Amino acid sequence: MASQRRAVVLIVARDVRHEVLVDPWGAVLVDDYVRVMERFGLEPFTDELLKALPSPNKLMRRRVVFCHRDLWVIADAIRRREPFYVLTGIMPSALKIHLGTRMVIENFRYFQEAGATEAFLLVADVEAVATRGITLQEARRRALEFHIPAWLAMGIDPDRTKFYFQSENRTVLRLASCFSGRVTMAQMEAIYGEVTPGKVIAALLDAADVLYPQTRLPGAPGVIPVGIDQDPHMRLMRDIVHRTKAEFGFRPPASVYHKFTPSLDGSLKMSKSVPESCIEIPEDPGSVERKIWKALTGGRGSLAEQRAKGGQPEKCVVFELFKQHLIEDDRELDRIYEECRSGARICGECKTYATELMVELMEAFQARMEEARAIVKELEFIRE
Amino acid sequence: MASQRRAVVLIVARDVRHEVLVDPWGAVLVDDYVRVMERFGLEPFTDELLKALPSPNKLMRRRVVFCHRDLWVIADAIRRREPFYVLTGIMPSALKIHLGTRMVIENFRYFQEAGATEAFLLVADVEAVATRGITLQEARRRALEFHIPAWLAMGIDPDRTKFYFQSENRTVLRLASCFSGRVTMAQMEAIYGEVTPGKVIAALLDAADVLYPQTRLPGAPGVIPVGIDQDPHMRLMRDIVHRTKAEFGFRPPASVYHKFTPSLDGSLKMSKSVPESCIEIPEDPGSVERKIWKALTGGRGSLAEQRAKGGQPEKCVVFELFKQHLIEDDRELDRIYEECRSGARICGECKTYATELMVELMEAFQARMEEARAIVKELEFIRE
Repeated sequence: MASQRRAVVLIVARDVRHEVLVDPWGAVLVDDYVRVMERFGLEPFTDELLKALPSPNKLMRRRVVFCHRDLWVIADAIRRREPFYVLTGIMPSALKIHLGTRMVIENFRYFQEAGATEAFLLVADVEAVATRGITLQEARRRALEFHIPAWLAMGIDPDRTKFYFQSENRTVLRLASCFSGRVTMAQMEAIYGEVTPGKVIAALLDAADVLYPQTRLPGAPGVIPVGIDQDPHMRLMRDIVHRTKAEFGFRPPASVYHKFTPSLDGSLKMSKSVPESCIEIPEDPGSVERKIWKALTGGRGSLAEQRAKGGQPEKCVVFELFKQHLIEDDRELDRIYEECRSGARICGECKTYATELMVELMEAFQARMEEARAIVKELEFIRE
Repeated sequence: MASQRRAVVLIVARDVRHEVLVDPWGAVLVDDYVRVMERFGLEPFTDELLKALPSPNKLMRRRVVFCHRDLWVIADAIRRREPFYVLTGIMPSALKIHLGTRMVIENFRYFQEAGATEAFLLVADVEAVATRGITLQEARRRALEFHIPAWLAMGIDPDRTKFYFQSENRTVLRLASCFSGRVTMAQMEAIYGEVTPGKVIAALLDAADVLYPQTRLPGAPGVIPVGIDQDPHMRLMRDIVHRTKAEFGFRPPASVYHKFTPSLDGSLKMSKSVPESCIEIPEDPGSVERKIWKALTGGRGSLAEQRAKGGQPEKCVVFELFKQHLIEDDRELDRIYEECRSGARICGECKTYATELMVELMEAFQARMEEARAIVKELEFIRE
């Protein structure tokens, strides 16, 4: 299938500055997904793995999900109908949803629907206090009024998902504190660079969160859908699991990684620090239209040249939006790809269509938010 | 009163190595209590303060309690019968009780009996995991089988005291994690020297513990009886209170400091690393006798010289044991002091008497342990 072939083309970052490759807290410096995979021992998401997963989602089919750790364990659990869990978290800071979060949600739902015994969505409220400088009250307010409703509006099923706040989960808080005695500062600095007390706690809480379901489902494998920038947390967690084997007997959950949504100017990842290159949810139609109109495409220097040589969708941010977010149907995506390559389709058409689909997405989101807010008022959160 | 005059004489440490003066985790380097007080702004425990406290205990009367922070606030609360709390903690590591712990208990009981609204004894089980390398299960086992019974055997009233394990107190765990975002690594290093993730957590848990009662008694002052080596935790806590004023609205509890029990060889503090110079509870009679017999005294070079010049009780470790631990009656202590100074009393008599009293103390402790263990089985611990 054409879309699979295309998906292995790598987007090359233009802002590579130094050797620290991935930083879950800030600047993103990944220059080459392959290098990251090799350096940190991530396994590629292969055709064979794709076949082993029932009804893979579009991110998997298109290799936006491009690597993993131990996902075979989950594929086996799905096939054998054995218990497993899926978990992800909300960081209740800015009142916007990053497009990357949509991909986490899509993967979370995939594993939930594939038969996860328990699916956990946690609110990293304590982590927000530790690393974002907001109060616990403010983190809670933002989560209840915006973030959790937003996740529901984007398709999380409240009846099939278990929710908790870190601040209310004694097991998570306890595990994080206990883990502190099993890691060294040198180890944390090797993974994260310079650390602060807040970052120490945040990293340990992250490990505690992803292992916490095993206190309810002892011995069960789990899967954590994350952006590649979150892999440092996964590495620390795996190290903690190893060092506390006799003490806690956890097993490291699998993790599955999606690529970034590129910035509209073509750099590796959308970032709030360049707002004109970043679409977040919600965003008003005028702003969506303006931003997409200025997006970097794979178009040629002139219309004549494009008609003659065809466009370059593998370099096109608008095509990446279609692939990652806007077009569900693989055949439609293939058709656009072929039309672009043949010169039959020009950039203006794609931008207009992408704007239309993105505005629809925003409108659907807003339409669902009110109902979602009502649901959140009735939600029960794990307290333990 | 003679015993008060004597109490201001300082025991000078012989192992001063560098400028870091107090370290709650290990090596003790205090060379001069006055210097510590001046450097860190501790207030002297004055005659005036002594008079303001109802029925001061022997440690206060004899200035073994030698300094404080904000204790006037508690003296006022006691006088006005206003709410206040007292809190202290057990570190469930080695299965021995340090003599210094007896002084903490004596001061804890003093404030409890002086009218504390709530008196908390916590088990620092998570801190033991974070800094002592033991498991949570092991920390819990040691606390239930030895430490809590030992504290009851030394006079803690189980009916008037509230107990909790850090691992079971969500409020404490949450506060510690939240505080991480309000301190810097530089600040922690300035207070503690080199820090590890475990030490970061332990220090933050310590602050959370001493402030936790204010979540039950909003706005109430508290008092924390500690050894002078624990003052770094108090300084960090006060800084955290200041930095989170708007967020949490805590007030720093008062703290009250006792001197160390000197090592039997005359150095500043008994330490398990020199077992022959250290008496801990429990200890068998033969060992007590042997160790006290070798203790440093203020005796002269010969019996004739001692009879002529008199002894020097202010330099005598055995006299310090009488003063801090073995003799309740001030008049008896004064008599020994005067007899020594006059040359009427020789070191052998004091050593024999100290051994007798110390063995009695050990026997009384052991006799109470069985009953205390039965009580602990019925104890209710705060879980929240």
